[in-house]
Amino acid sequence: MWHKREMVVHESDPYNAEPPRNRLLAPLTDADSFYVRNHGPVPELSPDTWSVAVTGLVSEPVTLSLGQLQARFAQHTVLATMQCAGNRRSGFLPVRDIPGEDPWGPGATSTARWTGVRLGDVLRAAGVHDAARHVEFAAPEVSQLADPPQPYGGSVPLGKALADEVLLAWGMNGAPLPPVHGGPVRVVVPGYVGARSVKWVRRITVRADPSENYFQATAYRVLAPEEDPDAAGPGDGISLGPVALNCDILSPEPDERVGTGPVLVRGYAHAGDDRRVARVDVSGDGGRTWCRADLDAAPSPWAWQHWRATVELAGPGPHTLLARAWDSTGACQPESAAALWNPKGYVNNSWARVPVNPAAAAD
Amino acid sequence: MWHKREMVVHESDPYNAEPPRNRLLAPLTDADSFYVRNHGPVPELSPDTWSVAVTGLVSEPVTLSLGQLQARFAQHTVLATMQCAGNRRSGFLPVRDIPGEDPWGPGATSTARWTGVRLGDVLRAAGVHDAARHVEFAAPEVSQLADPPQPYGGSVPLGKALADEVLLAWGMNGAPLPPVHGGPVRVVVPGYVGARSVKWVRRITVRADPSENYFQATAYRVLAPEEDPDAAGPGDGISLGPVALNCDILSPEPDERVGTGPVLVRGYAHAGDDRRVARVDVSGDGGRTWCRADLDAAPSPWAWQHWRATVELAGPGPHTLLARAWDSTGACQPESAAALWNPKGYVNNSWARVPVNPAAAAD
Repeated sequence: MWHKREMVVHESDPYNAEPPRNRLLAPLTDADSFYVRNHGPVPELSPDTWSVAVTGLVSEPVTLSLGQLQARFAQHTVLATMQCAGNRRSGFLPVRDIPGEDPWGPGATSTARWTGVRLGDVLRAAGVHDAARHVEFAAPEVSQLADPPQPYGGSVPLGKALADEVLLAWGMNGAPLPPVHGGPVRVVVPGYVGARSVKWVRRITVRADPSENYFQATAYRVLAPEEDPDAAGPGDGISLGPVALNCDILSPEPDERVGTGPVLVRGYAHAGDDRRVARVDVSGDGGRTWCRADLDAAPSPWAWQHWRATVELAGPGPHTLLARAWDSTGACQPESAAALWNPKGYVNNSWARVPVNPAAAAD
Repeated sequence: MWHKREMVVHESDPYNAEPPRNRLLAPLTDADSFYVRNHGPVPELSPDTWSVAVTGLVSEPVTLSLGQLQARFAQHTVLATMQCAGNRRSGFLPVRDIPGEDPWGPGATSTARWTGVRLGDVLRAAGVHDAARHVEFAAPEVSQLADPPQPYGGSVPLGKALADEVLLAWGMNGAPLPPVHGGPVRVVVPGYVGARSVKWVRRITVRADPSENYFQATAYRVLAPEEDPDAAGPGDGISLGPVALNCDILSPEPDERVGTGPVLVRGYAHAGDDRRVARVDVSGDGGRTWCRADLDAAPSPWAWQHWRATVELAGPGPHTLLARAWDSTGACQPESAAALWNPKGYVNNSWARVPVNPAAAAD
């Protein structure tokens, strides 16, 4: 009998949920635990009738069924981490109000093996024109979050679209891609914010410019603190693509009683796109001293890395455990979420902070 | 009559110098103002007798004179910023001692038009083997800074070496490349720390592994604060390649008296390699409020961007002007150099801080 495991459900319709921290300790996330960020209802699409149209700045526009995709192009599997631009949004809560009553924690990221064909192979077969610069993906489901309501969509630069790691995927961890994760077929853009890995993709349009879809042109953008998100229009703010360096602590849990002395701290780190995680530091004394974490090798160039460190907690506390990652440019995560606050609550990549050994309630 | 302009000279033998801030306000840096970071004496090489050997994991090793380079391969010009890994090292001074008595300020970066041939064209002509992963560059000049003393060298990953922007350059701003900047011919690796743009290159070796040269394996690495740089050996620390997001204020000058009211603040920002600068914020009140700078378009994908903002200074001060850049991932520079301090003083990419209106000395 199948048991749906516990998830942190942010919204039931459309379903939006993240796994609790301890479920992210595994190198791969099973489909039932994998975070879900949907902007509208899950469309009911049969693998037998689904097809995708490849159009725009190509020599031979084509519509391909799943069977044709599988017959005409080589199959590839890529192990890749997906991360929502709103991952760790709850870290902004101590700073200022942010949209949504129950913001995403550190579980708006997960990792799976994706199987499909290279988007680049499909595009090259269609013949990309010289004027092409971007590739747009369109889904069928209408989102009421968009203004005006419209199907979900987005785009990536042509160079990324042609890269070996970008797939049209029908498989997840060796099984058919579940509808809630974009089945029958979704785009998988490793290293980019999850918003560009469009689910249930039905149309791929090669363009000279980025997509004008609401979720590319207006949403998923970092506004300046003084900008009004309700007044923001197309082109305002920083458009998100490659994922920023980030990490979080997965164990202990926030407010867990771990006592004093040595405590094993575990977590994940992810550098995004072409960067790599080079080092992770952990502190048990509020940043006065740091120790270097034992960092796992990445299971693929496109995946997170897990790490662990044992820190000494002096006295009963309360204490705040800290973690920070460094990437292959020698850059470190910024210290404070306060400096990063933005109206839509994206890209909180400040140091991880997990309070432990809370003060006992007064008798 | 030619006048050598004022430079901040860190060392005269070998010559190491950076331009003062106001000379970085131009989009292009002239050769006399362009920073110089040399590890040994400038070798005397004639363009008529210079040659470079291409060897290692290639099908057809070859030695090419300058004339052969120019005759056999297409000429390309790339406008690119060069940045030393030690740029802004002086920002660590308030934190803790760092090596060298007169650390680099914000002028260990400069921008020029480089003319030469694509390294990738040369490598492809030589036939790169499937096992190749890195490309090593070796210079003739022996550095006493290396342990043991050895010619300067370094390497970049093969993918970068084959990229269109990487040149074997003999021209700088339309003139022959001066010897102090690597003439007759140097490597130019846009987006990477200057250390990889090896000057006076005489040998290019295609390899399976990164270079074992001291300046790749041991130097130019970010160590953890507790590591002893004198004891560090090959492979310790974070090896530097792509440049980290950075910015600095070029005007006003530190400790300049600018009065109260509106002050025009100008500077540069640079995101490195494949990232772009997306926004720059400036504050005149210690970070309580920020305004968005007017950001110039990048003169090329590989170059810095200049910016300007007018901030209000309330009262006589002293004040500290702040600036911080955001990149195309929505990430911001870290706030404090204290968190970034490392024994060799690399990659200070903390917020720019320039004090103005110093307190008058007591009568």
